[in-house]
Amino acid sequence: MPTPLLTDATAVVGIGTTEWSKSAVDSEKTLALRAIIAALADAGIAASEVNGLSSYTLESTEEVEIARNLGCDDVGYFGQVHYGGGAGCGVVGQASMAVATGVCDVAVAWRSRKRGAAASRPWAGVSQRIAGNAAWSRPFGLVRPVDEIAMLTRRYCHEYGATRKDLAAVAMAVRAHANLNPAAQMFAKEMTLESYLAARMISDPLCLFDNCLETDGAAAVVIVGADRAKDCAQPPAFIHSWAQSLPAQHQTMTNYFCDDPLVGPAWSCADMLWDRSEIGPADIDVAQLYDAFSPLVLLSLEGYGFCGRGEAGGFVAERGIGPGGKLPVNTSGGGMSEAYIHGFNLIVEAVRQVRGTSTSQTPDANWSLVTSGEGVPTGALVLRGSDT
Amino acid sequence: MPTPLLTDATAVVGIGTTEWSKSAVDSEKTLALRAIIAALADAGIAASEVNGLSSYTLESTEEVEIARNLGCDDVGYFGQVHYGGGAGCGVVGQASMAVATGVCDVAVAWRSRKRGAAASRPWAGVSQRIAGNAAWSRPFGLVRPVDEIAMLTRRYCHEYGATRKDLAAVAMAVRAHANLNPAAQMFAKEMTLESYLAARMISDPLCLFDNCLETDGAAAVVIVGADRAKDCAQPPAFIHSWAQSLPAQHQTMTNYFCDDPLVGPAWSCADMLWDRSEIGPADIDVAQLYDAFSPLVLLSLEGYGFCGRGEAGGFVAERGIGPGGKLPVNTSGGGMSEAYIHGFNLIVEAVRQVRGTSTSQTPDANWSLVTSGEGVPTGALVLRGSDT
Repeated sequence: MPTPLLTDATAVVGIGTTEWSKSAVDSEKTLALRAIIAALADAGIAASEVNGLSSYTLESTEEVEIARNLGCDDVGYFGQVHYGGGAGCGVVGQASMAVATGVCDVAVAWRSRKRGAAASRPWAGVSQRIAGNAAWSRPFGLVRPVDEIAMLTRRYCHEYGATRKDLAAVAMAVRAHANLNPAAQMFAKEMTLESYLAARMISDPLCLFDNCLETDGAAAVVIVGADRAKDCAQPPAFIHSWAQSLPAQHQTMTNYFCDDPLVGPAWSCADMLWDRSEIGPADIDVAQLYDAFSPLVLLSLEGYGFCGRGEAGGFVAERGIGPGGKLPVNTSGGGMSEAYIHGFNLIVEAVRQVRGTSTSQTPDANWSLVTSGEGVPTGALVLRGSDT
Repeated sequence: MPTPLLTDATAVVGIGTTEWSKSAVDSEKTLALRAIIAALADAGIAASEVNGLSSYTLESTEEVEIARNLGCDDVGYFGQVHYGGGAGCGVVGQASMAVATGVCDVAVAWRSRKRGAAASRPWAGVSQRIAGNAAWSRPFGLVRPVDEIAMLTRRYCHEYGATRKDLAAVAMAVRAHANLNPAAQMFAKEMTLESYLAARMISDPLCLFDNCLETDGAAAVVIVGADRAKDCAQPPAFIHSWAQSLPAQHQTMTNYFCDDPLVGPAWSCADMLWDRSEIGPADIDVAQLYDAFSPLVLLSLEGYGFCGRGEAGGFVAERGIGPGGKLPVNTSGGGMSEAYIHGFNLIVEAVRQVRGTSTSQTPDANWSLVTSGEGVPTGALVLRGSDT
């Protein structure tokens, strides 16, 4: 049942991003501040009013630095969420919860990333001693996240008869959206099945185009209570529902030890999300599904209930997730073709869709889903437009 | 005004700690699990029911490890709070907020610490290049937290005429409580003014006994909704109110750049805390004031409104904070004489006081205050006994 304390109690009223690049001059801190300032300007809210700060544990800039450089007054809420790309929707959801309960009035949530910063690519540091659970997989070749997901993808293909063409369909659909978005890193670069199949293999069966981009940049959102949202500069994107999930017996991205490794955090997250929503997957107009790797989009389509297990390849082929598709997915280009900052640009795009301002706009989009990383403990948000 | 959505909406129904030691055999993970299991046993709640996890960013054990080893079912809330000893009350407060809003049903909050683990003493790693704001203080001798607080203490003594005897009175009162607590690391060790004054200087004017202990151990609490709390094994400690604060223009523990460095996060945290409470400082029966260093107790007495600015030394001397004092403080021995795990044992002790089970019990304690670190962004909780 919907949680009456939280349902539609808050809204995203401001969104902001920096430009996306491969070599930003600005520091992660400056990028974060620029995105937050842009989001506040979009909302028409002064930085001095911000009294809630929510971000990723992965973030290298401390809240004290953000608050002081932004010019906040006393901040009454600060919290972080762990698990990299799994954090984003929880970061926004927890900030929303703090606003809904009166703990703070104006919350900002953000993610900033500069590839040179060690915190952005924790796996890039090679250690002589491998601690914790990584000891069970790193020495055997699962070094990068892509290796961990490649093994999961092999199992997916084995179980359901999926092929590289199913992955290509995802990558091409997302790229087609990006080709409509001048801000996307892959705006001017078209992808065909031929160019997809010709791309070099990164971790078999995942090729270059099954992987997200490497991006320097930042994105931010501003959250206020629903009443105040109606007086802001932009149409509100109400936070209808949100959920996080860390499923039973989970092992982050190497969850190969359970009976059914193809059921990941998306499934239990979806159970909670739909249970708290007045709608279900069939009512969603447009979705931003976390796409650090193309197979995660297939898994998320299944996990969030858009199709049955093993049916995502057919769903993409028959219904379409590209421009003009029945369920447009990752309409800014997503992590694979717009920018990759651990999924936070997906959240910004989910807001654009209910505002009607996407460069690949879904007509009359009023219900907008966004999800965080599948494989890691995750989260998801349902946004509701102001026309519903 | 009290926040109706949160006031008395949840309760701490279970508390647990490990033994305190200087050289634990168990890992930080095992210590954390032992404390959580003890807290669940105290509450009479099965680990499989835990679906909310809240801890410090300082924590080295990931939520996935806690959940899997504990035997949780699907976890629907996971969040962390930054700023070391400033985090504790926010960790509990945010978990409480998640329970109050129905995001999760049974939340556990914890802190585990083993001194050998790098994450427990981040300042112990010496870097050739000093990044961020530390570049403005580390090269000039403010290397450890104690150095940062020593400079603040000098200013305090200069402004108000306080002396080392005021610091000694705090250390001795807290030790007197510890001498009643067989589990305290300093249980059998009495402190006199002579032994205090004879202790070696650590960072002038702070001597050995003005510093918290070094401790291996863990502590945990279990939080459920107020209705369920009435059916648990122990009398509930209702979470009446909580607040966090990161004040305007703050600079963590080297906040020497503002006009008035003696007004720290405690003041703005207190403003929010009392604003959300049905009571004020005069109604508090017993307080656990974060004591990584003795002067923080003096500052917190002032910040939370127990006395005027510069009057804390007189308050301690005249009213008493030791056993039998008018406002007993840190009744388990606190961070200086029971154990130091970034303030989480203070939270456990605040619960014991409203249960009536402290080894230095305040008669008829129904309103129990606990605060997190002063100097860093902080938090505070007001607990309400079931007899009020």
